[in-house]
Formats: sequence, structure tokens, C-alpha cells
Amino acid sequence: MNGMLSIVGIGPGSEKLLTPMAREAIESADLVVGYKPYVDSLHFVIKDQDITTNGMTSEVERARVSVEQALSGRRVAIVSSGDAGIYAMGSLVYELLQHHGWKDGDPLKVDMIPGVTAAISCASLVGTPLAHDSCTISLSDLLTPWELIERRIAAAASADFAITFYNPRSRRRQEHIRIAQRILLEHRDAETPVAIVKDAYREGQVITLSTLGEFVDCEFGMTASVIIGNSQSYRYGDKIITPRGYSRKYNLENGAVKSGQKRGRSLNTEVGETA
Amino acid sequence: MNGMLSIVGIGPGSEKLLTPMAREAIESADLVVGYKPYVDSLHFVIKDQDITTNGMTSEVERARVSVEQALSGRRVAIVSSGDAGIYAMGSLVYELLQHHGWKDGDPLKVDMIPGVTAAISCASLVGTPLAHDSCTISLSDLLTPWELIERRIAAAASADFAITFYNPRSRRRQEHIRIAQRILLEHRDAETPVAIVKDAYREGQVITLSTLGEFVDCEFGMTASVIIGNSQSYRYGDKIITPRGYSRKYNLENGAVKSGQKRGRSLNTEVGETA
Repeated sequence: MNGMLSIVGIGPGSEKLLTPMAREAIESADLVVGYKPYVDSLHFVIKDQDITTNGMTSEVERARVSVEQALSGRRVAIVSSGDAGIYAMGSLVYELLQHHGWKDGDPLKVDMIPGVTAAISCASLVGTPLAHDSCTISLSDLLTPWELIERRIAAAASADFAITFYNPRSRRRQEHIRIAQRILLEHRDAETPVAIVKDAYREGQVITLSTLGEFVDCEFGMTASVIIGNSQSYRYGDKIITPRGYSRKYNLENGAVKSGQKRGRSLNTEVGETA
Repeated sequence: MNGMLSIVGIGPGSEKLLTPMAREAIESADLVVGYKPYVDSLHFVIKDQDITTNGMTSEVERARVSVEQALSGRRVAIVSSGDAGIYAMGSLVYELLQHHGWKDGDPLKVDMIPGVTAAISCASLVGTPLAHDSCTISLSDLLTPWELIERRIAAAASADFAITFYNPRSRRRQEHIRIAQRILLEHRDAETPVAIVKDAYREGQVITLSTLGEFVDCEFGMTASVIIGNSQSYRYGDKIITPRGYSRKYNLENGAVKSGQKRGRSLNTEVGETA
């Protein structure tokens, strides 16, 4: 009767981007819980597990079923697209566990399994737009005051972060992305490259490349990710490249480091390899 | 003679977090290029492929070998830990391709394969600290002026982003993280939870939980990720939970939406499921 609750990020939804760790958690579960289209996309790992799915408006219900079933001793996998800890089910599940008095060390074991979040999967399809400092901002003001969201956009714009907008637009919320654009244009060139990616690595994938000056006129909805380059980002064919910094201290010809580098530091001891 | 160049994110380095897409690219390569410890960690997929590895100070050299070998018609996989497009090899590879005049549509095919970046893998080990808007900031000033890095820290602090610091400290650079702490303390409580994660999902994994007021006294180096919660983040046992917003509009008892929600919107139509 020792339950198991795995909070699983399934990545963008392609079998090839589901990690073995996530696959194993789903395969070994008695019950898989999730938003119906995501659970459906897992048909290749779902055999005789029970399934609880429902619509997008029922996240609390999904979290509740997962926690209660796991507390009763079942092995439950609750799945989120992307990573389960980024704008997803993870926090809700922990809040419910807390509500039920669960503590680490209790018979019920709880595990987060990381996944490839939308910013990363979408970025990979258009080059390396997020290669340097970047941030994610959700434009949904349902649980966050719009004033704070606007403040975040201004902060990110002025400090030259590349930005990935989640929930960029919904039927009822057409203006937020235009306000974001106006704020960004106060700090960044209208030619700054922008990518809009919908259904990355899924059937119906749509990639649109545009510019900060024009992207709001493109067609996209809530499930798209909108990636805004920083001041150094540039278009290279159908890719957006953000350099790894603001100075070019390396020589592409022979790998040697150009002069100008600070004494006592070699070029690459501090860049890159920790991502 | 149609080469193939796969720029592969291998995740934190555990076989269980290597995506099937990444695995396939490495398995089908003639040549695997990477920083030696990362290539060594791939022993389970490396059979008769050629291997070019070298130390961390030779990133440009690794990118150059990869591009030249792929242009000569070989199938090359260049690997980065985490995601290859986040503080990693991706941009350098594209800059070198451009230097060689490569264009999309040329016989050489180039592919980015997304991976689980350090912010995500580290966060998953300590709960859901990045569940809402967050940013990543590298504290290395090798290619970025320190003034800009400081401006980014201040912007992120004042707009209440959760923050993941990459390259938080090196032997020669002990002060940056202390400056970051001072800036953050101007905007955020000293009790704000902080996680320091080293070697996530690898042998020797170390997780340290601390607070904004005290974390700089913990032991950590360049390869650790330091995650700072936002103003709403809280400790729950050995986890850090960041709620998905600033208002509690949902009722954990029965999934119903509490009053106070804007008319015409259902709770979850705009949260979460796009990560």
C-alpha cells in the first residue's frame, strides 16, 4: 500500500522527446492522469494502465485525483506537457499534498521527472535564440496582476533578456501581446527577430519568423510560444542566432583567443558547458 | 557525401534523461564531438563511432572540427550537456557554419536536438521553484560586461522573477554572487528559499537548500546552478514551491473556482498546460 506519485514532464509530445525516465514512470503506473490530448499522445506507452483524463479547465480536479489515488496506495503518473514544474501541474500537486498533510519520508513517494519545456523545444526549431540570458513570461493575467506582468516585460526589455512568452494571446485577451510589443519597442529595434512556434515536434507544427515590429499581426493563439531575440540576435536564413555574449573574443579561424581577453582567463573555462 | 550535423543536448548526463532523439543522433553518427567528461558519460551509446574530445577550454576547436567534418560529408554529432542552445555550443556552431558560407538547403543537413537544460533538471530535484515567470542569468563576465549582468540581476530582482544563476562562482570570481545577493536583498526577503544543485542526476549529485540571506556561505563552484525563489516561494520540507500566480482563485477541496475570478473565464483555460 505504499503509493507512488510521479509528476511527469512529457516534453512537447513527440515520442522521440519523451525521456526514458518519463516513459518508465508512465509504463509502471497503475493510473495515468492528464489533460486528454496529452494522454492520447502517449498511446505508445499506455497499455493496461487506468486512465483519468479531462479537459483543460479541470486541472485542480486532475491534481486531486492523482494525490488521493496515490495516497490510497496506487502508483500514479500525472503528466504535463513540457516540464511539469514550469507553468504546469507540479505546484498544484505539491499544494494538494501539503493540504493532505503529506511529508517527505511518508510511505507515499513523490517524484518530479523533468521534461523539455516549450521554450527549449520551440527554440531548437529556430536555431539558438535563447543562447544567452533569457526569461519566460506568461501573458495570462488570471492568477497574476497585469501590472506585475507589465513590470516584468519592461524589466526584461530594459535589461536585454531574450524572452519567451507563454500564453501569448487568447480569444478574450488580444491586447496583452500588443502592449508587450510597445514596451519592447521602447528598448529594442523593430528588426529584432521574433519566432512564433506552435505545436513543436507535433502534427500540425507551425513555425513563423517575424520581427518585433510586425509579429503581432501574425496569427497565433494561446498555445503558441513567442520568442523575442535580444539586442544581439540576428537572422541567419530561417534561423535566429543569439551570440553567447557581447564581445567576440574568439577567433573562428583557428580556435585561438583574440587579444583583449582578460589576463589569466582562458576563453572557455567559464562559458557554455553547464547548460 | 551529404553530411549531417546534429547539435545535441544530452540533458544532465543520466542515460534516463537522454531523449530517444538525441540517442538516435549519437548512435547514427560517424563522429561524436564533445567535452571529454560528457562524451565519456555517453559510453552506453558509443560503439564504433569516432570520437573527438578535448578539454573545456577548447570549445571553438570542437565546433570547428564538427563543422569541417560535417561539411566534408560525415555524420557528426556535437554534444552539449543540458540543451545545446542554452549557454552552450549551438551558437558557436551556427557562427562557424555561416563563416563557411553554409545555407539551409545545402547538401549538409543541420539539426538542433533539444535537451533538458540545467535550470529544469536542477529545479525538478527541489520541487517547483520555477513554476511561474523566471529567468536565467550567467554570472560569467567573460563575454558580457559586468555592468549589464548587474543590470539584469536588478531587473529580475525588482520584477520578482525566480532566477537560476549559471556559472555562479569560479576560483577567480568570488564576488559576483555576493553582489547578486546584495541586489536581491534590496527587493526580496532574506528568508526567500534558495537551492544550490551540483551534478544533478549524476554521480556525486549535491543538493543544498538555503536562504537568500545565507546561501553565499555555502560551498559551490562554477558548475552548480543556484535557484532563487520569487516573493511567493516557500519551503515545504525539502522542497521549494513557487505557486503559479499571486492570487488563490482555486479551491483545493473540490476543484471549484472561488469567487473573485473574472466573469467569463474558467480557471484553467489559461494556465499551465503549455509548458
